[in-house]
Amino acid sequence: MPKIMGLEGEQVHQSGSGWSPVYVEENLGVMSVGFLLSSPDDAVIWRGPKKNGMIKQFLRDVDWGEIDYLIVDTPPGTSDEHISIVQFLSSARVDGAVIITTPQEVALQDVRKEISFCRKVKLPVIGVVENMSGFVCPKCKKESQIFPLTTGGAEMMCRTLNVPLLGKMPLDPQIGKSCDRGHSFLAEAPHSPATLSCRNIIQRIQDYCTQNSPQEEDTI
Amino acid sequence: MPKIMGLEGEQVHQSGSGWSPVYVEENLGVMSVGFLLSSPDDAVIWRGPKKNGMIKQFLRDVDWGEIDYLIVDTPPGTSDEHISIVQFLSSARVDGAVIITTPQEVALQDVRKEISFCRKVKLPVIGVVENMSGFVCPKCKKESQIFPLTTGGAEMMCRTLNVPLLGKMPLDPQIGKSCDRGHSFLAEAPHSPATLSCRNIIQRIQDYCTQNSPQEEDTI
Repeated sequence: MPKIMGLEGEQVHQSGSGWSPVYVEENLGVMSVGFLLSSPDDAVIWRGPKKNGMIKQFLRDVDWGEIDYLIVDTPPGTSDEHISIVQFLSSARVDGAVIITTPQEVALQDVRKEISFCRKVKLPVIGVVENMSGFVCPKCKKESQIFPLTTGGAEMMCRTLNVPLLGKMPLDPQIGKSCDRGHSFLAEAPHSPATLSCRNIIQRIQDYCTQNSPQEEDTI
Repeated sequence: MPKIMGLEGEQVHQSGSGWSPVYVEENLGVMSVGFLLSSPDDAVIWRGPKKNGMIKQFLRDVDWGEIDYLIVDTPPGTSDEHISIVQFLSSARVDGAVIITTPQEVALQDVRKEISFCRKVKLPVIGVVENMSGFVCPKCKKESQIFPLTTGGAEMMCRTLNVPLLGKMPLDPQIGKSCDRGHSFLAEAPHSPATLSCRNIIQRIQDYCTQNSPQEEDTI
């Protein structure tokens, strides 16, 4: 996270009101275990209980201030991280989960498990994003499906499970480059089809959260 | 795993000598939590201790018979699964770890953590495989780097950390198709550059294990 956000080498500061997030911009703060390591290559060799403790500290002891959105990026799966976040935030009325997949059936099978998890713990599914959805060759401008949609991709899965498909993100080599440099892909490639797709997805998530907000009339 | 191996719907049988693996061929047996679920979409919502218990059962209670290789496919990371497998097999003289990465720095950073983990727990690193290493457009036959090597890819990392690079696997849409159908990619696409690369990598791992074997003179 520190690398992608251009924050490598930054440190978390502690004040009377808790840990301060590291700020990319005035309105974008980040907290990550990555800030607490002495080297970016250090392994965090922790079993579940230690990870759960850190998640609790990040939710309870960070001085986030007044924020509109808190985005938690989880690893894939349905284990400690996922169970703990849902438990710790159970009284916070979480808007929901955004689930990222790729088009092939082997990935969709894991995503169905993730949706089944969300339903079991009563976490609303805001929607699914299909990533790595086609690649336009920079040389001949023709599109290939690198991860073929053998079972209809995220679109078919969403229809079957009755969850919204938020959009599809095509592969763009610039995404990897921007992330490795800690730059904003959306700013560096404003006209890429992936940028347009990403902006649409963000808009749909915002609309969902606005409609879902109990203080809608107060805050608008 | 059941899907990729073409074993979906198969069940594990229990006998006096333990659980029997499910066989793809006479010389290839598989064990997976996937065989124990009532539906392939069921989420396995387990915290660390339960996962560790299942790993122990898979190592202790499965009647593997006489085998040449036991391959354990782990999730990414350095948590319960990794710590437990190393602990449970500590007296078994494990040959080592094969670490899979993609070419971009954001992935390599995680792989450095994985290598640092292996060193801490004294697990030899057999080598690193660079996956998704270039894509040849099926329309114009020209190659693109979808995940650009902003820091020299796995090759540079392996040189810096003094671990072997076992090979590079290019992207091939047939891989995803074969996996989704539970077929062998190596058999379905015998002339793909990815197949040739994969066979080279397998050969290098076999060579390592043969050289490393204490019973070399007995078994050959």
